Amino acid sequence: MKSHTEYLWFNTQKRRELVNITDTIEHIVHSSGISEGFCLVSAMHITAGVFVNDEEDGLKSDIWEWLESLAPYRQDYRHHLTGEDNGDAHLKSLLIHHQIILPVTDGKLDLGPWQQIFYAEFDGQRRKRVIIKIIGD
Amino acid sequence: MKSHTEYLWFNTQKRRELVNITDTIEHIVHSSGISEGFCLVSAMHITAGVFVNDEEDGLKSDIWEWLESLAPYRQDYRHHLTGEDNGDAHLKSLLIHHQIILPVTDGKLDLGPWQQIFYAEFDGQRRKRVIIKIIGD
Amino acid sequence: MKSHTEYLWFNTQKRRELVNITDTIEHIVHSSGISEGFCLVSAMHITAGVFVNDEEDGLKSDIWEWLESLAPYRQDYRHHLTGEDNGDAHLKSLLIHHQIILPVTDGKLDLGPWQQIFYAEFDGQRRKRVIIKIIGD
Repeated sequence: MKSHTEYLWFNTQKRRELVNITDTIEHIVHSSGISEGFCLVSAMHITAGVFVNDEEDGLKSDIWEWLESLAPYRQDYRHHLTGEDNGDAHLKSLLIHHQIILPVTDGKLDLGPWQQIFYAEFDGQRRKRVIIKIIGD
Repeated sequence: MKSHTEYLWFNTQKRRELVNITDTIEHIVHSSGISEGFCLVSAMHITAGVFVNDEEDGLKSDIWEWLESLAPYRQDYRHHLTGEDNGDAHLKSLLIHHQIILPVTDGKLDLGPWQQIFYAEFDGQRRKRVIIKIIGD
Repeated sequence: MKSHTEYLWFNTQKRRELVNITDTIEHIVHSSGISEGFCLVSAMHITAGVFVNDEEDGLKSDIWEWLESLAPYRQDYRHHLTGEDNGDAHLKSLLIHHQIILPVTDGKLDLGPWQQIFYAEFDGQRRKRVIIKIIGD
């Protein structure tokens, strides 16, 4: 069994941002030399997420509006008694989930035609990490 | 390390449908010859999901009602400016999640007594795929 | 490839409870002797969840309030026609998700600085299981 581990750093300009990382992950899979296996893409911070969906601007706006409606920014989260103001970012991370597993087949990401991989930043403007770990043969 | 990859095709009669795929996955695990490992079950389309829960009709109705309340069908998603009308299906897919990892132990799915595996179609009546990939020994 | 499987049993005093299992999982990873791989932590019951977030009391209260607002306890779930009264627990499990994959690097859980692992019990006061399965080398 082979394994390959890399860490991606993000420091988004806006507090909330979606970053399409499909090509980056494809490149890492290629450089790993693993042809059959699983690729884990997992946020290492608890106010960010990773998900798979469509690269379409309207939909991305819909996703932000939806996340805000189900896990809204509020002043009065109890978490804010610690001095933080990112309670919504923790809940958005739980809602969208912080990780995905991508199948690797014949040395490539085995994705459907419209599947794109996104890093979702919910409390950015500072350095945060995502682990990419591939295991297989 | 061994790996085994199959693709399941679905073409549901209704636009929204739950399909219990537990026996199908168990059969694929058996035919893989892998006795210890992980089985990924992942929708390859962005308007479908895969989840584990109970095979009980009342609960399945509750799940549909709940999905509709949190990710409702609406005319006015921005995504619909592309001509699509499936914005809710994208959000339902994000909510329920599009994939699961099943443990394989002693050549079998290592599930709890009531755990059943479902393919959740949110925009069907056309051919869509799910990847089943098992790695292990 | 090596694999290591353990089962954790929970029998919570309260019906709803969060249990921080980070140290337990770290110990299992250490005892597995696996240095590079993936660790699956997956609830084997359909009214419990497993997630990664922050060990902070205020936030944990926020998470409970949020789960209750999005997947509330109600008398009138159709599932309750079976005699059960835990419909909300099934929906909370779907919302928070029932499993995570943890990367194992250099024989340790490869977690970010604030990532803690929680077992979320939504219908406790009885014995329930979580599978921990590690594969790698």
